[in-house]
Amino acid sequence: MLKTLTNRRTIRKYTDEDISKDLLYELLNAACRASTTGNMQVYSIIETRDVEMKKKLAPCHFNQPMVEDAPLVLTFCADFNRFNIWCRQRNAKPGYDNFLSFMTAAIDAIIVAQTLCVAAEEKGIGICYLGTTIYTAEQIINILELPAGVVPITTVTLGWPGEKPEQTDRLPLKAVIHKEKYCDYSEQEIDIYYAEKEAREDSKQFIEENNKFTLAQVFTDVRYKKEDNEAFSKLLLGVLKKQGFMNYEL
Amino acid sequence: MLKTLTNRRTIRKYTDEDISKDLLYELLNAACRASTTGNMQVYSIIETRDVEMKKKLAPCHFNQPMVEDAPLVLTFCADFNRFNIWCRQRNAKPGYDNFLSFMTAAIDAIIVAQTLCVAAEEKGIGICYLGTTIYTAEQIINILELPAGVVPITTVTLGWPGEKPEQTDRLPLKAVIHKEKYCDYSEQEIDIYYAEKEAREDSKQFIEENNKFTLAQVFTDVRYKKEDNEAFSKLLLGVLKKQGFMNYEL
Repeated sequence: MLKTLTNRRTIRKYTDEDISKDLLYELLNAACRASTTGNMQVYSIIETRDVEMKKKLAPCHFNQPMVEDAPLVLTFCADFNRFNIWCRQRNAKPGYDNFLSFMTAAIDAIIVAQTLCVAAEEKGIGICYLGTTIYTAEQIINILELPAGVVPITTVTLGWPGEKPEQTDRLPLKAVIHKEKYCDYSEQEIDIYYAEKEAREDSKQFIEENNKFTLAQVFTDVRYKKEDNEAFSKLLLGVLKKQGFMNYEL
Repeated sequence: MLKTLTNRRTIRKYTDEDISKDLLYELLNAACRASTTGNMQVYSIIETRDVEMKKKLAPCHFNQPMVEDAPLVLTFCADFNRFNIWCRQRNAKPGYDNFLSFMTAAIDAIIVAQTLCVAAEEKGIGICYLGTTIYTAEQIINILELPAGVVPITTVTLGWPGEKPEQTDRLPLKAVIHKEKYCDYSEQEIDIYYAEKEAREDSKQFIEENNKFTLAQVFTDVRYKKEDNEAFSKLLLGVLKKQGFMNYEL
């Protein structure tokens, strides 16, 4: 199994073959055994198979082709709605309309998402995470009809691999692990840790295509820009408020 | 491997046996292959083995005994600090001092944490997540000396199982999956979905021990109280500000 984890790569092209309902339930059965805060399971998963629904979701993910091409799209949501209803039905007053509860539920949602991905990959399924979910949460809420207490956190496209991409690079393990205390990075360490990434042919191509001087500039000026991040931050905090997770703070 | 996932249970008691450096690196090697936004790997992992450091961290986790008993404690952090340094060193202006970037990094941190947990459990190691990390992030930041751009998101204790607990309950899969659109819960559905949990002997014991009438009241009035959640929400938003993730919003 560690082999599956170690050899994995993100898959963005899929064959026409479906992922059966039974197989999905086998994956869910494994995923829902994952850790969850206080065994509250404050998450929900929205299953998208309908072609029309995929078309509606595609713009939320900047029209990345995986959304319409994948047989199965799963949107993982932070969800206190179900738990709140249960509380009210049992004469208990839920106090989960705040930022901490949002984070608790978001963590629950990611833990179940990643466990499902690991299970899927073990079965030979290819997966791709879409980070766009938190950028366009408001539109996704409208399309999937998510009630108050529910916020989409991430989306995963799943399908049988229709490509065999090269494995991408990762930083050396030393770069991400700190012993006992955080050891801040010296200039030299940064040079060493990012050397492999910067030496890659695709990195050089990225720089050239975007008319930049360094790979870091491709990230800051093209891929993940300050003005976009700030605009999406505002939108996302607005969504938390609208979905009832900032009732105390604001 | 699905068997490992499906049969897992959280382990809170450990034997005295250590988790070797080599084994940890094997787990990290698998975990760091997990999906990460734009291949930025905006996370860091702090490894705690030192007895004195565990003692310092224990109160941050409300003195749950796992922190001092486990041979290995890992704190998973959202980390844009390393990436920011790299950008600045490469003549690029990072724009990651905002809430969206915090969420991106938090998601990265949880994905790597859960992948490491799955790998560990496949090796027979027992793990326990500590949700307290986001409650006491400020103290953890001080103890682990986390710089601006770094926020602890979750903590996992790891060790060789010293107990064989029963598997806890989970909601039926139907309760957490929605087809195409979110289907809100009827009173009857809530009754059905929570029936197993409420019928458990340990649930009944919880209610009695806490002098409550329903299990939900144990959650709302004892375990996860509104006033605590609100106090921790304030603290956590303060930490995001202090660590430089709210530079635009506030």
